[in-house]
Amino acid sequence: MIQRPRGTRDFLPDEMEFRRNTEMKMRKAARQWGYREVCTPTFETQELYTIRSGEGIIKEMYTFEDKGGRALALRPEGTAAVLRMYVNEAKVLAKPLRWCYLSDCYRYERPQKGRYRQFWQFGAELIGADTPEGDAEAILLADDILRAAGVTYDLHVGHLSPMRAILRDLPEDRKRTIMALLDKKNMEGLEETLDSWHLEDLESSLKGLLEADTTDDVFAITGPIPEQERIESMVNVLENEGTVFRQNYGIVRGLDYYTGMVFEGFAENLGAENQIIGGGAYRLAHLFGGDDVGSCGFGIGFDRVMVSLGDVPVPDETVVAVLYTPEAREYAFSLSRKFRDTGFRTEINLLSRGIGAQMKHAAKTARYAVLAGDREMQSGTVTLRNMKTGTQKECSVAEALHGVSQEWQ
Amino acid sequence: MIQRPRGTRDFLPDEMEFRRNTEMKMRKAARQWGYREVCTPTFETQELYTIRSGEGIIKEMYTFEDKGGRALALRPEGTAAVLRMYVNEAKVLAKPLRWCYLSDCYRYERPQKGRYRQFWQFGAELIGADTPEGDAEAILLADDILRAAGVTYDLHVGHLSPMRAILRDLPEDRKRTIMALLDKKNMEGLEETLDSWHLEDLESSLKGLLEADTTDDVFAITGPIPEQERIESMVNVLENEGTVFRQNYGIVRGLDYYTGMVFEGFAENLGAENQIIGGGAYRLAHLFGGDDVGSCGFGIGFDRVMVSLGDVPVPDETVVAVLYTPEAREYAFSLSRKFRDTGFRTEINLLSRGIGAQMKHAAKTARYAVLAGDREMQSGTVTLRNMKTGTQKECSVAEALHGVSQEWQ
Repeated sequence: MIQRPRGTRDFLPDEMEFRRNTEMKMRKAARQWGYREVCTPTFETQELYTIRSGEGIIKEMYTFEDKGGRALALRPEGTAAVLRMYVNEAKVLAKPLRWCYLSDCYRYERPQKGRYRQFWQFGAELIGADTPEGDAEAILLADDILRAAGVTYDLHVGHLSPMRAILRDLPEDRKRTIMALLDKKNMEGLEETLDSWHLEDLESSLKGLLEADTTDDVFAITGPIPEQERIESMVNVLENEGTVFRQNYGIVRGLDYYTGMVFEGFAENLGAENQIIGGGAYRLAHLFGGDDVGSCGFGIGFDRVMVSLGDVPVPDETVVAVLYTPEAREYAFSLSRKFRDTGFRTEINLLSRGIGAQMKHAAKTARYAVLAGDREMQSGTVTLRNMKTGTQKECSVAEALHGVSQEWQ
Repeated sequence: MIQRPRGTRDFLPDEMEFRRNTEMKMRKAARQWGYREVCTPTFETQELYTIRSGEGIIKEMYTFEDKGGRALALRPEGTAAVLRMYVNEAKVLAKPLRWCYLSDCYRYERPQKGRYRQFWQFGAELIGADTPEGDAEAILLADDILRAAGVTYDLHVGHLSPMRAILRDLPEDRKRTIMALLDKKNMEGLEETLDSWHLEDLESSLKGLLEADTTDDVFAITGPIPEQERIESMVNVLENEGTVFRQNYGIVRGLDYYTGMVFEGFAENLGAENQIIGGGAYRLAHLFGGDDVGSCGFGIGFDRVMVSLGDVPVPDETVVAVLYTPEAREYAFSLSRKFRDTGFRTEINLLSRGIGAQMKHAAKTARYAVLAGDREMQSGTVTLRNMKTGTQKECSVAEALHGVSQEWQ
C-alpha cells in the first residue's frame, strides 16, 4: 500500500472544516486591523534563506533545482518570502503596509510528536512603521487573532535593548554562551558560568532583568538607555488597551534577527511544545535588495492552534438525503436542486438499491430523508422523514422545504 | 535583488481577495452537493505518480529525497493523492464518498503564457458510485461550481466506449496513431492517415462519431454496445436537469486513464489555453493498494477560472482611518477598537506625523477619517470626515459609528 510521506498529514472533512473555520476567524480578525492577505510561491531561491541564516539552514530545508539550475527550497517560514515580495512588487505602495498570510511551511527534520514536515503558519507583517505604535499594533493584532481563534494563552512582551545594554561590555563569545543558556532557560548553567567568570555584578543584573516585569524595574537595572522612551510608550499603549500580558526582558530567541521589540505566546494545554506565537521588530528588505525598512510581524503556529482548540467538533449541519424509486429518478434530481437552492446540503442517492437500503444509508449521513417514490412523483409531493425522531409525513414540496428550515421534529 | 523563482507568482491583496472569494463560492457550491473538503500533503512519494503514468512523468515533476532516502515529488495534480488518502484513511467510511479540494500543484516545465510552475486545481472526487447517476452528478456538480464562480463556458460530455467500439479491431499502434491525431484535433492528418491505410469505412464511422451529438446518432454508427443504456441514462439526467451541454464522443484525452464517462469545459475568453475543466470516470485505488472502487471526478484549472473572470475588482469596503494628535493617542487606540468591533476595517495611524500628513495618507486608503485631537479627547467626541465628499462634522462616538454604518455623505 502506498503511504503518505513520513511526517505529513491527511485531513479528512471534519478536521479540514475545523481548520478552515479557524483560519477564517483569524483572517477576519486580521482584516479588521487592515491586514489583508498576500500569497507567495511555495518555493523560493535558497539564497533567500541562506542570506539571513547562513548555509547551515540548507540541511533543514527541502531543496531541489529548477530547469535553469537554480537552487530552490520549500519555504521553511513565512516572513522572508513576504519581504522578498515587498521588495519585488510593493516598494512603491503607500506605507505602512499591513499584510497577513497563511503559509504552508516545510522542515526537513526527523518527525517528532507535534512537529510535522509540512506545517502551517499564520503570519502578519507590518512594513514601514518603525514606531512604538507599530510595535504595539503587532502585539494587539496577534492577541486579537489568537482570541478570535479561541486560544487561551500567556502573552510575554519584551525588548532586546535592556539585555543588550547589560551584556554590552562582554566579549562576543561570552555573549553567545549566555544567550544560548538563556535560550534554553538553563538558569543553573547560567549561574555556574557567571560564577566561573567571576562576574557577580552581571549575575545580579541578569537575575534582576529576568524577574523584572515593569519598565521601572528594568531601567533601574540598566540605567538610562536610548530605547527607554520607546519601550515605555509601547507598554503604555498595551496597558491602556487592557491587554493581558507579562513583560519579559529575558526573551532572547532571535537576538541576531530581531532589532527591538520581541514577543512570544504560550498556550496552556500543549505540554513541552507550547509556544504558539513568536514575533518582533526586524529589518530584512535591504538584504534582498530593497530599502532598509523597519518592519515587525509574527508567526502563529497554526497546527498548534488547532491542537490547543481540542477535539474536532462534529459539524452540526442540516443534511438532506434524497431517496427515490427508479421511476422517480428525474423527479428526485429536480427535488434535490430545490433543497440545495434553499441552502441545504443535499445528497441524492447514487446507487442502485432499494428504498430500505437507501434509508439505512441516510440514517448514517443525514438529518432528513426526502423520499420520492412513484406515488409522490405522481402527486407532486414528497415523504419527509426526520431521521432522529423517525417521524414522517407526506406533504407538498414547499411544506417539506419549510419543515426542514424549521427543524421539523 | 532576489527575485521570485521563474514561473511562479506573488499575489497582492486585491488579487488574493478575489481568489479567496471565488474559492469560497466554489467550495460552497460543492458543499451544497455534499462534497466536503479534504487536504493531502504537498509532496507524495514519486511512486504514487509513476505507478499510473510511468517513469516518464518524473521529468515533469519537482522531485527530491527525504531523510529516509525516499524519492518524493511535489504533486503534479490532485486526484492521485486524494485516492491515496482514501486507501490509507477512508476505506471503511460509508460510500459514496464525496470530497473536494483546492490543491496547489507543480509542474517542472518551461514557463509559458498562462502556464505556471505552481498552479491551483479545484477538484472533486466521487468515490464508490459507479453508476449513470454518479457520472451525471459529477458533471452537474462541476457545472454548478463553475457557474457559482461566475465562469461562462462550453460543456462537452462524452463517453469513451463508442470510440473504443469503432477502433476495436485496429492494431494497438494504429489506435495510438489515431488517438494522437484526435487529441491534437488534427483532422487533416487523420484523413490522410486513414486514406493511406485504405480504411474508408473507419474514416466514415469516425467522422460520423465526431459529428454525433445525440445518443441515437452515436449508436446508429457503433451498433449496439454494452454501455448504451448507461450512456443514455446519464444523458437523460443531464437533459432533465436543463444542463446546457454538447455531447462529444471525440474526447480522447486520457483514454488510457478514464474508464467511461469523460467531460471537458472550455471558457470563452481564454484564447488557445481555454480548457478550464477536465474530468471523467476512472479507477485508481487498486493501484495504490486499495479496493478496485469505481470513481469519477474532475479538476478545474483555478488560475484559468481567475483569468476568465477578468480584471481584479477593486474591493468596495468601508475602511476607517483613525488619526490623532500625540496627546490623544490612547484615546485613538480605544476609538479604533470601537470601530473594529462594529465590523469596520479600521487602520490607525502608526507614524509620527502631523494631522495634515495623516489626512493625506487617509485620502489614499480610507473612506472615512476619524480624527481624535486634543479637543475631541477632552469632550469624548470625534471629528468624522467623508474622504470622498470632504464633508466633516464633530460628533459623539456613537453618532460617528452610526454615520459610517449608514454611509454618511
